[in-house]
Amino acid sequence: MSDIRLFPILGVPRVEPGDDLSRLIVEACARAGERFAAGDILVVCQKVVSKAEGRIVRYTDVEPSPFARQVASQGEDKDARIVEVVLRQTNRIVKMDRGHLIVETGPGWVCANAGVDESNGISEDTVILLPEDPDASARRMRDRIREETGVEVAIIVTDTFGRAWREGLLDVALGAAGIEALLDLRGQQDLNGRDLHHTVVAQADALAAMAGLLMRKGDGIPAAVIRGYGFAPSEAGAAPLVRARANDLFR
Amino acid sequence: MSDIRLFPILGVPRVEPGDDLSRLIVEACARAGERFAAGDILVVCQKVVSKAEGRIVRYTDVEPSPFARQVASQGEDKDARIVEVVLRQTNRIVKMDRGHLIVETGPGWVCANAGVDESNGISEDTVILLPEDPDASARRMRDRIREETGVEVAIIVTDTFGRAWREGLLDVALGAAGIEALLDLRGQQDLNGRDLHHTVVAQADALAAMAGLLMRKGDGIPAAVIRGYGFAPSEAGAAPLVRARANDLFR
Repeated sequence: MSDIRLFPILGVPRVEPGDDLSRLIVEACARAGERFAAGDILVVCQKVVSKAEGRIVRYTDVEPSPFARQVASQGEDKDARIVEVVLRQTNRIVKMDRGHLIVETGPGWVCANAGVDESNGISEDTVILLPEDPDASARRMRDRIREETGVEVAIIVTDTFGRAWREGLLDVALGAAGIEALLDLRGQQDLNGRDLHHTVVAQADALAAMAGLLMRKGDGIPAAVIRGYGFAPSEAGAAPLVRARANDLFR
Repeated sequence: MSDIRLFPILGVPRVEPGDDLSRLIVEACARAGERFAAGDILVVCQKVVSKAEGRIVRYTDVEPSPFARQVASQGEDKDARIVEVVLRQTNRIVKMDRGHLIVETGPGWVCANAGVDESNGISEDTVILLPEDPDASARRMRDRIREETGVEVAIIVTDTFGRAWREGLLDVALGAAGIEALLDLRGQQDLNGRDLHHTVVAQADALAAMAGLLMRKGDGIPAAVIRGYGFAPSEAGAAPLVRARANDLFR
């Protein structure tokens, strides 16, 4: 196994709705003297993907329901209009306690506040929603980068989620293109020739978590590259990372 | 921010109880033409740490309690003697359903089967326990590597855990020395000058997850190096990653 190299993509300008994000990233790489290489994994945070796709809500225009007002009144410093936006993105409330609202949203992501993001928005009165279909977003970026550069890269679209049982946030993969999200090592044997049980690795989440350390929010670094990591291509996206509710002991 | 480089440490021999693991790793690096550099993060899987520390139980000598037999009878292919070993490592059962036994063990880790590991053992009739105090294990390795090489590295001791809500396993940090486990970005501001709420990153878990992709179990690669990642030193270990039960919505 050869070395793996990671680097952040610096100098991406502030992304606005309608921007060609892939092109902005390719241009920022070029300015930094970097070029994509085949087999690179480009990790991009959902916020810039959402912004480019116009997934923005002016929450000051939103009329909160009575339930949203009720929820907001239980948290410190919660705005009922933002709670209303969250509830409109919510399939199901997983846990509502001590001012936290952990919900199932989109294709089954379990996260705080449906991933609705109040920071780094377009302006003070807007919030950003998660991409509608981050696997599709990832595929579009992969195709667009191939058009721009002639190079086939894999894409992982990430967001920063909390977890049960452990402190601290980790970036996880919401969308993917061109890379297997789960790495299935079942069937391999251990050093004693015993089958390795249950060894399905959340490969795309591990890559997202590491890249997340390079994509510092306060510094406006929305993307990073992982180079030299061998992986199998796949068109299944990040959907396999979502545990079906029927198989989940904690939902 | 400069580039980050990751590489697996190949050629570490099979670890036996009483082995000087740090020295085995230093020697394997030397054979591979690598030397530790100041600021390197050495990530080591708990299995070899546990083996070197003799955290091995011959489960065929263990007498299962009636409860262990009862639990074993509900799972496919569960050995009541191994369940007994698991229960002896368990503070509290978090979830017991569909053949899974998710417990709180050690200083509050929530994981399947108390981390008791049936694969890559010393022999067919043994299982491996988690290290008693992986932060202490990490500190000892850091000190020992300093003695051997004169170089100060940070250490992360990992295990592979499942998660709520998402498929696939990730390596997490059970122990650490010389590096902050949590990276607290609170107080920083976003690009609009708005405070970044709730941004405490599980830095050591992200590093563990990525290194876990290089430490392939079937291939007997027990350690990896992360070089060029800037971090603040800390003597707090990995304990801050454990969410106290009182703060946990899911326990």
